[in-house]
Amino acid sequence: MTTDSKKKEGLVPEPSLRRMPCYLAYLKLAKRQNKQYVSSTHIARDMGVDPTQVTKDLSYTSIVGKTRVGYEVNVLIDVLEDFLGFCSLDEAYLFGAGSLGNALLHDHGLDQYGLKITAAFEVDPKLIGREIEGVPILHIDEFKKMKQGVKVGILTVPAEFAQEVAQTMVEGGIKGIWNFTPIRIRLNDDVVIQDTSLYAHLAVMFNRMKNLNLNEV
Amino acid sequence: MTTDSKKKEGLVPEPSLRRMPCYLAYLKLAKRQNKQYVSSTHIARDMGVDPTQVTKDLSYTSIVGKTRVGYEVNVLIDVLEDFLGFCSLDEAYLFGAGSLGNALLHDHGLDQYGLKITAAFEVDPKLIGREIEGVPILHIDEFKKMKQGVKVGILTVPAEFAQEVAQTMVEGGIKGIWNFTPIRIRLNDDVVIQDTSLYAHLAVMFNRMKNLNLNEV
Repeated sequence: MTTDSKKKEGLVPEPSLRRMPCYLAYLKLAKRQNKQYVSSTHIARDMGVDPTQVTKDLSYTSIVGKTRVGYEVNVLIDVLEDFLGFCSLDEAYLFGAGSLGNALLHDHGLDQYGLKITAAFEVDPKLIGREIEGVPILHIDEFKKMKQGVKVGILTVPAEFAQEVAQTMVEGGIKGIWNFTPIRIRLNDDVVIQDTSLYAHLAVMFNRMKNLNLNEV
Repeated sequence: MTTDSKKKEGLVPEPSLRRMPCYLAYLKLAKRQNKQYVSSTHIARDMGVDPTQVTKDLSYTSIVGKTRVGYEVNVLIDVLEDFLGFCSLDEAYLFGAGSLGNALLHDHGLDQYGLKITAAFEVDPKLIGREIEGVPILHIDEFKKMKQGVKVGILTVPAEFAQEVAQTMVEGGIKGIWNFTPIRIRLNDDVVIQDTSLYAHLAVMFNRMKNLNLNEV
């Protein structure tokens, strides 16, 4: 084993991690249908994934299915939720309460997945002092005065401020930045940056649809 | 060229497509800083991408940079916006006006990227008949009576209804489904499905942060 692979030991591959919430959703459906056990073969079939891939993905949680029976639905739900960090509620701060930030404040689904936005930071005087869905919007300068310990920050500021605000976030103790801007943030290695550009996804969809049209003509 | 590669001709690789909105954001910043030209070397350096990759990504738009000068900022912005389909405004219908659907209705950023939600469909009697941000919420049965021609549908219903509603969407003429549910939708090949599970991204971020903590201890 090389030093590099040793360093990455325990790092679950991103595609596996991304599939796990899908398995979780699938299992919750199975539970509602009063199913007690599901096999990796069934999960694979219904989700269009290879069965060995399902087994491998789930093995990262250290759960083991029973031969000929599969996984116990209730147990696998608990194990997955715990593994994914959806059980414990993490506090998060929102940076930028403009259009997309405002939108995220309306999404109570985040709570279910372990994230609770408790404050939002802005520079726009029209927004500061207001509340959206019970979350206070404060001036960004207030962030430095806030209690320490909040590790997750959601970045939804305009592109031109993304890098600068990300640096401020890190100085204030943020360890994980969920970056909704289309800007590639550059920071030290001890900060996790998760890029989620909705518009990048939109670009992919538009291109695939255009291609579909070309093929039809 | 094999038949398969011929079939895929014109299909821009997804990683390239995903980077394009990032280039666009970068170029808009450059424009605001009154820059006339940018080179692929500069883009690469500032975005942490390989320079040959930048050149290759941009070549899909058929734009060619000038030696020693690079790309004209204004031209490249127009070319990219056009290529990505962000110039023309596409109408879209929203399916599910619950928490996440409601959130997306608050995101006016989508307009800028060429998507305008003009109606939302629901089954919840508490929501039907209301308006959110000027968009009417109608019963899902009304969808069938709506004018044809809207090709983009955004799917934000609860997981257990995802497959069923997706089928209804396709029957009503939807050709591209932006799927925000964690369910893998299974449909014919003539429909584009773009999966965007916010919670899958959250799972990746939580895992990476956990890993960071383990390494620190």
